Amino acid sequence: MSKVFFDVGISLDGYIAGPNGGPKNPLGDEGIKIHNWMFKQKAFLEHLKIEGGETNNVDNDIIENIFNRIGANIMGKRMFVEGEANWPEESPFHCPVFVLTHEKREPWIRPGGTTFYFTDESIQDVLKKAKQSAGKKDVRISGGAKVIQQYLNAGLIDEFTIHIAPIVIGAGVQLFEHLDKSKFSFEIKEVVNSPEVTHLLYIVKNKR
Amino acid sequence: MSKVFFDVGISLDGYIAGPNGGPKNPLGDEGIKIHNWMFKQKAFLEHLKIEGGETNNVDNDIIENIFNRIGANIMGKRMFVEGEANWPEESPFHCPVFVLTHEKREPWIRPGGTTFYFTDESIQDVLKKAKQSAGKKDVRISGGAKVIQQYLNAGLIDEFTIHIAPIVIGAGVQLFEHLDKSKFSFEIKEVVNSPEVTHLLYIVKNKR
Repeated sequence: MSKVFFDVGISLDGYIAGPNGGPKNPLGDEGIKIHNWMFKQKAFLEHLKIEGGETNNVDNDIIENIFNRIGANIMGKRMFVEGEANWPEESPFHCPVFVLTHEKREPWIRPGGTTFYFTDESIQDVLKKAKQSAGKKDVRISGGAKVIQQYLNAGLIDEFTIHIAPIVIGAGVQLFEHLDKSKFSFEIKEVVNSPEVTHLLYIVKNKR
Repeated sequence: MSKVFFDVGISLDGYIAGPNGGPKNPLGDEGIKIHNWMFKQKAFLEHLKIEGGETNNVDNDIIENIFNRIGANIMGKRMFVEGEANWPEESPFHCPVFVLTHEKREPWIRPGGTTFYFTDESIQDVLKKAKQSAGKKDVRISGGAKVIQQYLNAGLIDEFTIHIAPIVIGAGVQLFEHLDKSKFSFEIKEVVNSPEVTHLLYIVKNKR
């Protein structure tokens, strides 16, 4: 059955982006360090139409598996605005992306299969649409942190992966805050390690 | 060669203890949940002179290995005060423990091999004494968080293990804060997973 998930790179001190992020400073100060492992992998680079990259390692496999399972994305307005200024012409999603925003805007169709839909409906209703679009594939809650927190608190996430980079960055956007822990519990499903990052997959249980 | 290390249980949101900790509330509100996996293991319980507990699993092995390598401990005053009110007659260390405090106090000898030494020397000088006491064994920086942070920032930690419990607790004592990241970098050495906790061992590099 189709699942709802998120996966994010995170520092040892819990940040998924550095401070002062925005269209001119994507991922925030030093935020790119959290994702260094990812920017080296072919499976990531080819989504940005960049040649090269590493293959035949667990990090690349994990990225490939994640991309392959996504049938639709949901993201917050700030993430979209930051990406709009930085993604290539061919946006790196290749499927529908639902952007949570109060701004009225017509769907934005990009070459390569990405269409952005702008909506101010409830997160529940947006998820229903995303699931319909995804078909048998999964829905990824792309971020940012606040959107992920909203979906977790609403009991709407089935599983998630964090990719822990062995660094501290000291400031920025925390992932696991503003959570209502009465609404879920987590179970460890799988852990995969590589020299540069540790991938932890959790199942969300007892959703209320 | 003898190493200096720390190992701590930690929640997914980075807490090693809950809020409102103290002698009457050891580990703070809900802090015990971070360590549930540990309180089940024979290797931990036997240090508290409690019978029973699980064996033949990686969690128990990891605790046993850690206890076996410790030749001396260093801890902060608050951790000591919290423990003094709660440890059994036979303190669970069985080797010298150096307590960082401005309080003058004679060494406190406990049955079972633990002696607490109270010192207001610099963290560097205390570490020298702990190393001498430990001989060929390792020195554990027991905690709390502020003491671990001081030793990390001084470039005095060789390696550390975090035991990540799949929970969020939302408030309490953060481990990875107040760190001067210019003073070190981390390298992943080993990751061991079990159904209830993920153990991540890091080497500290580029100590300055």
